[in-house]
Amino acid sequence: MACVPRFRILDHDGSETDDTMDMLRKILRAHPHPASDAGDVALECAYAAAQCAEVCSTCADACLSEPHAAKLTECIRLNQDCADVCDVTARLIARAGHRDRETLDGLLRACVACVAACRACAEECGRHAEDMEHCAICADMCRQCEEACLSMQRALVA
Amino acid sequence: MACVPRFRILDHDGSETDDTMDMLRKILRAHPHPASDAGDVALECAYAAAQCAEVCSTCADACLSEPHAAKLTECIRLNQDCADVCDVTARLIARAGHRDRETLDGLLRACVACVAACRACAEECGRHAEDMEHCAICADMCRQCEEACLSMQRALVA
Amino acid sequence: MACVPRFRILDHDGSETDDTMDMLRKILRAHPHPASDAGDVALECAYAAAQCAEVCSTCADACLSEPHAAKLTECIRLNQDCADVCDVTARLIARAGHRDRETLDGLLRACVACVAACRACAEECGRHAEDMEHCAICADMCRQCEEACLSMQRALVA
Amino acid sequence: MACVPRFRILDHDGSETDDTMDMLRKILRAHPHPASDAGDVALECAYAAAQCAEVCSTCADACLSEPHAAKLTECIRLNQDCADVCDVTARLIARAGHRDRETLDGLLRACVACVAACRACAEECGRHAEDMEHCAICADMCRQCEEACLSMQRALVA
Repeated sequence: MACVPRFRILDHDGSETDDTMDMLRKILRAHPHPASDAGDVALECAYAAAQCAEVCSTCADACLSEPHAAKLTECIRLNQDCADVCDVTARLIARAGHRDRETLDGLLRACVACVAACRACAEECGRHAEDMEHCAICADMCRQCEEACLSMQRALVA
Repeated sequence: MACVPRFRILDHDGSETDDTMDMLRKILRAHPHPASDAGDVALECAYAAAQCAEVCSTCADACLSEPHAAKLTECIRLNQDCADVCDVTARLIARAGHRDRETLDGLLRACVACVAACRACAEECGRHAEDMEHCAICADMCRQCEEACLSMQRALVA
Repeated sequence: MACVPRFRILDHDGSETDDTMDMLRKILRAHPHPASDAGDVALECAYAAAQCAEVCSTCADACLSEPHAAKLTECIRLNQDCADVCDVTARLIARAGHRDRETLDGLLRACVACVAACRACAEECGRHAEDMEHCAICADMCRQCEEACLSMQRALVA
Repeated sequence: MACVPRFRILDHDGSETDDTMDMLRKILRAHPHPASDAGDVALECAYAAAQCAEVCSTCADACLSEPHAAKLTECIRLNQDCADVCDVTARLIARAGHRDRETLDGLLRACVACVAACRACAEECGRHAEDMEHCAICADMCRQCEEACLSMQRALVA
């Protein structure tokens, strides 16, 4: 199957960038109050969480399309919960200029919740990974997002 | 500034893939009822919309951090509206197994709304692109998302 | 079954108000740039859309809990789509100070999309209304939200 | 100013109900696996969180419309964060059939995060309550939502 080409855009210095992750990276750096140390960690976390929300929503829908959907209700719900928790985590990180103590605590709570949601979803999807490729992919994505949130947690309490 | 490494994961055939866009691509293809022809177009659109939502949210917050924030209220609101409209577009596309006529019409309406929101946001951010890098990046991202939604529209009415 | 008491709060003029709809009504009126004529219509629409999002999410989950869930996948997806479209409609209306032509057009598109999503969901849930009370309730709520969005549409094009 | 009439619908037993809170109450009760003891508490919490999300979004926009918006950036961000956290809390509660230990823990984390977000927002809005009615209303709504989430927390750990 032919590989779909990524969007190609020109970077401001004239070099070519290859995907929208760079857009997110660049805008987080162009923010008037960029998060200095936690910057790249925050970027990876926001990016992973936004994608994980999409992947979990797709996995929920894919489970619903399986002939044995009725046996996958637990998996579907964990996917949906994980999508919603990832989505709010990505939204909170996007408000990067907001860095008082209370907000950082809020961000930390979101990361903790996101780690737990990703772990539960990865575990459940992992149980079906041999039978359904979408669950294998979702379990991978959730573990990746869990790692990114754990790194963000460490950066926040450092 | 050192470049942040992307996540590296192993593809199921053992090759290395380099980012989460591949996760989204793979899970959309692993769906039991994959959208055959519109597949790659749908992927690009879902991916662009999910990233555009993040970039617009960050731009709104960056505008709010500017010393002249009070003059950027229009830009902030267009950013927020665009983020919300992109977010719902990405969510709808993620439910890929849902392809009756009514749903495809709903998807088409979402794409039309997303094109308009991205265009309005790109135009407004474009006006400040020389002064604020975050607005330049956001305008680029919005135009990219607008293109992806236009392609999706064409695929849906084909 | 005992009726759950509503929250009771004191209105600013000392009178008692009985629920949070009044909070939404009051804050939309306290906005520095309140939407003059469309005000009450906008309130009803925002309120109905926010509740409809909740009701549709609950109906999707209730369908998933039914023994014959596998036969309700279409209903589940229409519920989820409707919840997402209602959610974004409520979010857009909440940004009440934002009233240039382009934004009002965006709001109009959201209302049109919300009418269609509610109609599709009401129709599908209506088919199961005799068998499942949750679908009967959801169909009612969707028709109510559809009406509110139609009124909003009329106010926007007046 | 004339009071806007609520929607009037007929209850299934023929009695008249007066607003959509009853729709949410009824559908949560009609769920095949209704949350027995926590039922009314969950309803109040879902309802308060859904409304609080709307009220906070409106307050953020109202702050942005104030002549001294540039001094309200902290308030605007706390409003936006609170809206997003309330929104996800309402979404999670709507999936009422999902009651394994892990999910209840996830719900508990969401309630804890929601209490903190509401408290921070109520505190900040409370500082401007004398000057801006929308902040007074938002502070009230946030305290009400905080109470509802605290009750939900207690029900979940009981």
